[in-house]
Amino acid sequence: MTGESTHEHTHKEQRRQYTFNKLKAFGQEIIEDIEKNKVPTLKIPSRGTGNIVYDEDKRYYILGDRYGRRSLGNVKQIRKLGQMVYVANFCKDLVQRDKTATIREMYYISEGWGIEFNTQQESNIVGEDLEVALGATREDLGLMPEEDGASVYGDITLLDGDYEINAARAGKSGYTISPTIDQVELLDCGADFLLAVETMGMFHRLVQEKAHERYNCLIVGLKGQAARATRRFIKRVNEELGLPVYICNDGDPWGFHIAQVIISGSAKLAHVNHDLATPDAKFIGVTASDIQNYDLPTDPLKDIDVLRLKELSKDPRYQTDFWQTEIKKMLKLGKKAEQQSFSKYGLEYVVDTYFPEKLGLN
Amino acid sequence: MTGESTHEHTHKEQRRQYTFNKLKAFGQEIIEDIEKNKVPTLKIPSRGTGNIVYDEDKRYYILGDRYGRRSLGNVKQIRKLGQMVYVANFCKDLVQRDKTATIREMYYISEGWGIEFNTQQESNIVGEDLEVALGATREDLGLMPEEDGASVYGDITLLDGDYEINAARAGKSGYTISPTIDQVELLDCGADFLLAVETMGMFHRLVQEKAHERYNCLIVGLKGQAARATRRFIKRVNEELGLPVYICNDGDPWGFHIAQVIISGSAKLAHVNHDLATPDAKFIGVTASDIQNYDLPTDPLKDIDVLRLKELSKDPRYQTDFWQTEIKKMLKLGKKAEQQSFSKYGLEYVVDTYFPEKLGLN
Repeated sequence: MTGESTHEHTHKEQRRQYTFNKLKAFGQEIIEDIEKNKVPTLKIPSRGTGNIVYDEDKRYYILGDRYGRRSLGNVKQIRKLGQMVYVANFCKDLVQRDKTATIREMYYISEGWGIEFNTQQESNIVGEDLEVALGATREDLGLMPEEDGASVYGDITLLDGDYEINAARAGKSGYTISPTIDQVELLDCGADFLLAVETMGMFHRLVQEKAHERYNCLIVGLKGQAARATRRFIKRVNEELGLPVYICNDGDPWGFHIAQVIISGSAKLAHVNHDLATPDAKFIGVTASDIQNYDLPTDPLKDIDVLRLKELSKDPRYQTDFWQTEIKKMLKLGKKAEQQSFSKYGLEYVVDTYFPEKLGLN
Repeated sequence: MTGESTHEHTHKEQRRQYTFNKLKAFGQEIIEDIEKNKVPTLKIPSRGTGNIVYDEDKRYYILGDRYGRRSLGNVKQIRKLGQMVYVANFCKDLVQRDKTATIREMYYISEGWGIEFNTQQESNIVGEDLEVALGATREDLGLMPEEDGASVYGDITLLDGDYEINAARAGKSGYTISPTIDQVELLDCGADFLLAVETMGMFHRLVQEKAHERYNCLIVGLKGQAARATRRFIKRVNEELGLPVYICNDGDPWGFHIAQVIISGSAKLAHVNHDLATPDAKFIGVTASDIQNYDLPTDPLKDIDVLRLKELSKDPRYQTDFWQTEIKKMLKLGKKAEQQSFSKYGLEYVVDTYFPEKLGLN
């Protein structure tokens, strides 16, 4: 699909060449060690909880300075190092041929390696080790998750393969962010900001009420926890196009955290948050205050909700006045509310009244 | 989105008018009863298991002849009937304004009705009652599920709202079937058949290997159990465009049944299967025979898999020689296999060898 038009895709092509060189250097280092009669050893940044740091300046989680060493002289590490070399070789082949594979496909392909993976979990860890070792994302290496990302609707034009696509003309469900979103160029955008919502129910409400035209925005339907591709897309829209990003999810700890992972990244992916986090994105509801101010239909907090809210209140990403106040208020109320509960006031209320108020459009 | 161009959408407009008249007649019947001093009574086809019949000629489940009566003279039925009238009125408004609502939105809107629903479950049942009573689908009534349908890739041109979309030019993840797929016109199609696969991992493999060009087919990524909109789309492609449909899922009871529900419909939705089932669609694997013939990597059947396979073997939809043989063989093997396990032979094997063999393209 992309082979014919690589000359135009300079950004993509540069990134591909860069990753290819990294993979090649990774192998050459090992070969050089052997040629010098040294036992090959790799220095890999530690991903243990002790080395995951919330960076106050960057406003997302990063990896600290600790490194681990993996040596072919250590019997315990031979298997893992061997697998890593195989994975690196597999990825080099993918990058060279401009292909991708799912991590599931790689798991099956490893059957032919002699030191195949015993579980999917084992192959995932080696994939992440390679990400950290090379400072490249899994997507750069050609390894893709199964699932697609969010849906986008509104006036943005993308170059995906050989075709230009405007996300306001791609159907009622919009343009789907594929796992290969980094190969897509953002050509043009007429919108003023990006509005992301948790559910496709709310996405379709916004599209149906023409929110994209009325607010002049892009509408993004996150489909729950945002996929890596969605987070990458949102970051690129924010940085490359300079669009402010607003996230409006359900009023419960899970909705809060779906937003927060987009904003500040996750601890687990500290080694790639620089590509995924959008620290300037803003959460604009549904809050405990909204539940009171709009007299929303609610459900009582479950034990697990209470537990999660208490966890969040101690999380470094929730140390602002806003979050501390809203979490305390929700715990006191003992109630949560879904975004769609605004339809108590009619289908259009959320678009006519709620969003304009939260976005300060009136 | 559609208001401006309704004159072109004759099929859609006719369907809308038809549903609107049905909803109006539903209310008028009740009014007439009252004006004649009769207690309003509704005759509703029974959806009990005793009235769900597998029709050998139609090759899908239908509702039998049994009816139930709901009377406003029966204290136990007043609440449910009242809710039904409210839902019908709500739907009449939706259809009139050419809008849709999620069943979740309707649940919240019912707060203002005085006889609101206590649970989402309760409102779902009333919605289904109305479907059965009117012989219309929930989508015709403007009530939509939350989730989107499958992804489609390949040479089919659709009219969705005001825009023509070709599913080979809508991005790597293709065109997403929205819940309002019945408002979309199938304008043109250059493909010879439709090939549906269970996972987006396999969908992306097929797209990447250009299977749509090599086989001249549409590729559909089902994303697990097919949504109603997906089933409706597949049926329309089969009937309106005359394209054969092939389904290739994982080699386990769940993969089998995802295919079978597309082919023969589900018992639960017997009242709308005439709009959803595609009896001529064919399942083309992964089978127990494939596991043996291609020497695929497998997982052992779990207890729940064995139980499910035994259930399927007694199901009227699985009474062909093909299914009886394959189910028996899988039980004997004690193994199941995923579609992506073909990547044991390399990423391209499934497109170069397996599909052509199963489709008889060589």
